[in-house]
Order: sequence, then structure tokens, then C-alpha cells
Amino acid sequence: MQDTASGIMKRIEELAAERGVPVRAILVGSAARDTWLSGSHDLDIFLGMPTDCELGLALQIARDIATERTEKYAEHPYVHAIIEGFEVDLVPCYLVEDAGHLKSAVDRTPFHTRYVSERVHGLEDDVLLLKQFMKGVQVYGSELKTGGFSGYLTELLVLSYGSFEGVLSAASGWRPGISLDPMGHGSIGHDEPLVVIDPVDPRRNVAAALSLERMMLFSSAARSFLARPDIGFFFAQQEEALSDQELEQIIASRASMPILIDFAAPDVVEDVLYPQLRKAEASIRALLEKRGFSVLRSDVFAYRDRAVMLFEMQVWRLSRISLRIGPQVWQSEHVTRFLEAHPHPLSGPYIKGERVVVEEAREHDCAQDLLAAQIEKLALGRHLSGAIRRVHNIYAGPEILAVRDMEYRIFLSEYYLARHRIG
Amino acid sequence: MQDTASGIMKRIEELAAERGVPVRAILVGSAARDTWLSGSHDLDIFLGMPTDCELGLALQIARDIATERTEKYAEHPYVHAIIEGFEVDLVPCYLVEDAGHLKSAVDRTPFHTRYVSERVHGLEDDVLLLKQFMKGVQVYGSELKTGGFSGYLTELLVLSYGSFEGVLSAASGWRPGISLDPMGHGSIGHDEPLVVIDPVDPRRNVAAALSLERMMLFSSAARSFLARPDIGFFFAQQEEALSDQELEQIIASRASMPILIDFAAPDVVEDVLYPQLRKAEASIRALLEKRGFSVLRSDVFAYRDRAVMLFEMQVWRLSRISLRIGPQVWQSEHVTRFLEAHPHPLSGPYIKGERVVVEEAREHDCAQDLLAAQIEKLALGRHLSGAIRRVHNIYAGPEILAVRDMEYRIFLSEYYLARHRIG
Repeated sequence: MQDTASGIMKRIEELAAERGVPVRAILVGSAARDTWLSGSHDLDIFLGMPTDCELGLALQIARDIATERTEKYAEHPYVHAIIEGFEVDLVPCYLVEDAGHLKSAVDRTPFHTRYVSERVHGLEDDVLLLKQFMKGVQVYGSELKTGGFSGYLTELLVLSYGSFEGVLSAASGWRPGISLDPMGHGSIGHDEPLVVIDPVDPRRNVAAALSLERMMLFSSAARSFLARPDIGFFFAQQEEALSDQELEQIIASRASMPILIDFAAPDVVEDVLYPQLRKAEASIRALLEKRGFSVLRSDVFAYRDRAVMLFEMQVWRLSRISLRIGPQVWQSEHVTRFLEAHPHPLSGPYIKGERVVVEEAREHDCAQDLLAAQIEKLALGRHLSGAIRRVHNIYAGPEILAVRDMEYRIFLSEYYLARHRIG
Repeated sequence: MQDTASGIMKRIEELAAERGVPVRAILVGSAARDTWLSGSHDLDIFLGMPTDCELGLALQIARDIATERTEKYAEHPYVHAIIEGFEVDLVPCYLVEDAGHLKSAVDRTPFHTRYVSERVHGLEDDVLLLKQFMKGVQVYGSELKTGGFSGYLTELLVLSYGSFEGVLSAASGWRPGISLDPMGHGSIGHDEPLVVIDPVDPRRNVAAALSLERMMLFSSAARSFLARPDIGFFFAQQEEALSDQELEQIIASRASMPILIDFAAPDVVEDVLYPQLRKAEASIRALLEKRGFSVLRSDVFAYRDRAVMLFEMQVWRLSRISLRIGPQVWQSEHVTRFLEAHPHPLSGPYIKGERVVVEEAREHDCAQDLLAAQIEKLALGRHLSGAIRRVHNIYAGPEILAVRDMEYRIFLSEYYLARHRIG
């Protein structure tokens, strides 16, 4: 891999020289600091340019050195290529003076690489062990889908606590509110459950994307592992998809009401899609709860080019009759307006406590009907609202098995088992 | 009526003289102060004795002057008699020095009579109008079943505000927290919505039994009457019992789940029974809500020798699956015990927020089952718990029409219409 990296970097600088473009090739990421763990993603090579140049020139060089490639987009476009069997990201960036004055988020990466490279020597195995442990207990990966630990965060933890075991031992005592600041230069407050101030940027929390669940899950796994070390912790148990019959049985025995909203996912990357799905999930939960229904648990998932939101209801049917709590008795003008607005209640008006109350039929007495009627009216964010308005399906009960996709089936199976490695 | 009263009092004092018992007959209540409103109850005659005598001697005299009589019991026994067509209560009491040093609650009554008699002259019609108005809007009567205004309270309001209209005009602006103290001698705090310090006892709130609902209902009716005076306010509209078919239709159109607990009422007076029924109602509501069910409205009622508690459910069925929220992740001993206590969850254990969670089947997923299983275990007070444990019926849905009693049917009809005179 190192040979491939050197070859690519050489080729970038040759092309740059040919074209008179001041590009410097920089190997960043875990491959640069010998903490690379075999997995999906291999090499990160940045194409650094002075801040007064056009990044487009570097992008063109990236395109020209790879034949098998796709173009992707984070803050700026970059090239994802397969070279000599390795997955390589070729990312144009600016070479800024210091990490406090970035032109774009990727410009920070070379600083991270330099900071870790200068300090990690002798601790590479600890980093690799920790990454593999985190993979095994399913807390590794800072993509917004996972909300886990990034590679850089893992490295900083090893540097801070001195070893793999040091990290585990510290983490076993974690509660929300842990704060680390290796350079002692943190300059603003953060309210995330774990705060690790970036050594190259005093304003940034490296653990900002880590969810409370993943932090607590890691803490719990660390404690269990230290109490009874077991090789099993390093290897995630992938749930297999349950059969239709098994899922039907589970749905029947839970006697809840799962409601699935299935639609064509908007054409955005997962790091954009998942936060939007989570926000939409929260909005829909809020709507359901506000109307008196109750959600046991919910989750979201994207598969192929589609997305689903799953709401498992513990209360999905209400009486048709409902209370309308009106104003306080002594607010006579409000009372008059309230009574005018409800001229033919099924019961009332009557006084309850200090308020006027009437009882009327509610618009939707079952959760599916409410969702069917309201889903297109909810503000679910630019991308999702459009996608849902175009076409969506609502499935309830065993109908949720109508979606025939293996990834979705694994998602469903994991949803129903919901088993974390605890204790 | 005055002749009858005089006759009875003369007879009491004759008997007392014959027996050498130092009893003084005292006419108290509304008949004594010309504010008597024709209704069920007519004359209150107290048999006052020095504090060092036996009340039993007075009770014997009361027995001996009435042939058609029953014996009743409040704090002490007393005689309820029919004499010359009038209903008469003959109540032994102590003649205490002042109302601050009572031996029993009834000893206060002669002081009330004296206080009002000395001041009410010229305002008798205002008192009568106010009492009739309160009857018409269903807030008159201080029995604990009603929680309305007592006759003495009504008189004090007229004395305080100077007239029937004065009371209505003041009441139209009432909010909880109104306080009156005619003698300016109130000595302790009260937290009832209306506080009227007893002119003869600085520690007592005459309006202590008045419920917030009745107070607000009176306030609202007063405002409406002053805006559009109408003779209709003085006459309560008695709801008639709806037919089976009408009730079935109402039950179906509300699509709620009424649950009725019906049992033999313990043999106590309504003023003892109703507070116990209300407490039991609150305990059962709390149980239902704690387990995730939701009560739209509830009520209690006693008819003949039986009592019922009615709970109209807006959520009466839950998913079988339920969340068990465990300890925080870092409380490792609690976590261990929690996991041991839930060895085979249907889902989990997993981490949600900072807590360990499992999902298990709940014991009762429908409200009727929960009540059937728990009702005998609830602490519902001495009298009720025993009565319910002996025998009870639980009816749900249209089954609640199984109770064939006209008073109960009127209760049900009033429950479903629930119409107060507002606006």
C-alpha cells in the first residue's frame, strides 16, 4: 500500500510540474501514520494548493491520474478512485498557515496527520487494537449514520491515555460530561457528552459527532472487557436477516403496531441523508405523541435508493371522543369565543378545575390515518419533504414485510433484536 | 312551621324539667332566621346541655318526644323525626362559652344562628333568592357529594356583599384565591379556592367543603345571569334518563371504553361514602395512568344500597411489548442486577440515552384486565376495600347498561351530556 501511495503521489507531482500548477501531494489519514485497519477505505491523498489558487486545477490532476473513478462531493468535489486494487480518495485542499484559519474543513486534515504522526510512534498497535475493538462493539465510524468514534478521535484517546488498556480503563468510568484538552487551549464551551478539544484547533470538539448512545455503549463494553477479556469483543456479530415467518411471529408476539413510511431517498450522500431522516423521525414522533398516540421505539434506514422510517406504536388507537380544554372560567371573552367555536359538542360545555371543557370527536383516532393525512403537510426538511410528497407508501402491522430487500430485512431483524453488548 | 317549632321546644323543656335534666331547646338553622327555603329538610332543634353533663340524657328526651323517628349519627347520635308533617332534626349539643372552645362540631351551630339572626334582618329575601339561584345552577348544598355552598355560607355572602345582586356581581369576577374575613380575625392560612373565615371561629374556613368546580360554576352562572337575567337560572333542569338505545348510540359514537365497577355500598352515610369513593376513583385513575392507559373522564355514584365507579378510557389497549428502563450505564452494580432480573427480554438489552433498556411483555395490555387483577389489591380505604373484596362486577363498553336502576340511568345520562350552565 505504501508503494502504491508513493507512486500516486509521484504521479501527482509530475503532472503538476508539467502543467505549472503548484500542487503538493500529501498522504493523510491512518495510512500515513501506520494506524490503518484493513477495511473498506484505504488511502487518503490530499492535493494541497496555495490559498490564492483555483482548487479546480488540482481536481483536474486528480481526475487525470485515475481511470477507474467516480466524483464525489463533500464541501468541495473530490475523486474516489480504484488504483492497483486500493480504494483511494484524491482530495483537493488549501495549504493554510495554521488550522485556525481554514478555507474549508478538509484543509484541517493535513494538520491532524502531522500532529498524530509526530506523537504516535510506538503506540500504533494500541491504536489498531482500539479501532478493532470499537468495530467489534459497533461504535467505530464517525459518519452521521453511526454517530461513533472517528479514526482521529481514537488516536487522540490513545495519545491521551497512553495505551489501549489505558483508554478502556478510563472509558469504563465515563459519564456524560467528560472533557479532554491535550493542548490545554480549548477556547469555547461545548455541550456534547464527550468533549475532546482538537489539538490543532482550539474551537473544535473532535467528538462532536459522537452520540451519547455510542459513548455509553463503548464505556459499557470497555468495563465488560476489562472484567472478562474475550476475543469476541473484537468481532461484531452481524445479525442475519430473519425469515418472513420469524418476523411475523415477532410482530404478533409483540402485539404492537409497526408503521413504516417507505419512499425514494433523495439523491444525497448518507452524511446528509441520515441527519435529515433523524430530524424527520423526531418531527413525526412529536406529531404522534402530541395527538395522544405513543411510540415505543422508532428508527430510520436507507437501502439502495430508498429510505424508510419505522415507528413502533404502543398506543395506536384512541377513543373517538376527546377533550378540548378551553380557557379559565373568568376569562369571559375567551370563554365566549371558545363556546362559539364549539357550538355542538358531544358533551359539555362543563367546568373542570378552573377551565371550560367540551368533548368532541377527534379528527383521527388511529395513528396510521393521522400519518396518512399529515405526512405531506409536515416540514421535514428540503430534501425529504419533496421526496415524500412525490410518492410514499405507508405500511402497518405485518404489511411492513412487503418491502422485499435483504438490507432492509437485516435492518428489521436488528431493530427487533436490538441487542447491544452490555454486561 | 314556627308553631310546630315552638311546640316541640316547649315539650323538650317540660320533659327536661320533669327529669331534672338541665336542657335548653334552641331553634337553629334557616328556620330560626327566616331564610328557610322549602325543600327536603325543615327544622333543626338543638338540645343544649352544660359541658359537664351527659349528652345521652338529652338524646333520651329527643327520643321521647317523637314517635315517628330514626336515629342517625354524625359526631354524636341524634334523632331525625317527622312531627306534624315537618322533617325535624333533634340534636343534642353542649352549651360552650364561645365557639373557639367546642366539645363537638355541632356545638358551633347555635353561635352561627345567633350571628346571622342579629344581622340578617331586612336581607332575608336576598338570602332566599341566592339559595334558590344556587339550587337552580346546581351549586347549593355542602354535603360532600355535591361540594357546593352551605346555607350558612350563603348567608355570610349576603351579609358581606349587602344583597343578592351584590353577591352575584362579586362572584362574576371570582378566581381561585378569594378570601373574606367579616370579623377580621382569621388566624391561620387556608389553601381552598374560596376562604370565608367563620365570624364565630377564627380558625375555620366556612367554604372548606366548596369544590373549585362549584365555585367556578357559580361564578360563571352569576356572570351570565347579570348579562341576561332569566327566571330559568332559578330552576335546575333535571336530565331525564336516556333510553337504552340512546345510550348505546352515545357509547358507540364516542368509541371510547367505559369501564364500570359496581358493588354493594358499605353501610355509611353519603358524607362518609362520597369522599371515599372520590379517593378510590383517584387511586384507580393513578393506577391506570401509571400503567400507560389514559382516562378521558371518570365519576362515582351511589344508588339504593350500591355504589359505582365509572372510568371512560381514551386508551384502553396497549402493545403487549413494553419498555423497562433500567439504571444509568455507569452504575455497574445496578446494571448487573437489572440484567439478572431480566434474563430473557424480547428485545435488548440496549442503551438508550444513558440508560440500559430491555423490552418485555407487559402483564396486562388491556385496562379491564388490569382492573380485574388489581382492584382487590388496591388500598381503597377501610370501608370500600372490604365492600369491593366481598363482591364486585366489572362491566366494559355497552355492558355498563346491564345495571337496571333508574337513578343509575339518570347518573349515566348526566355523565354523558355533562352540561353545565356556562355562557
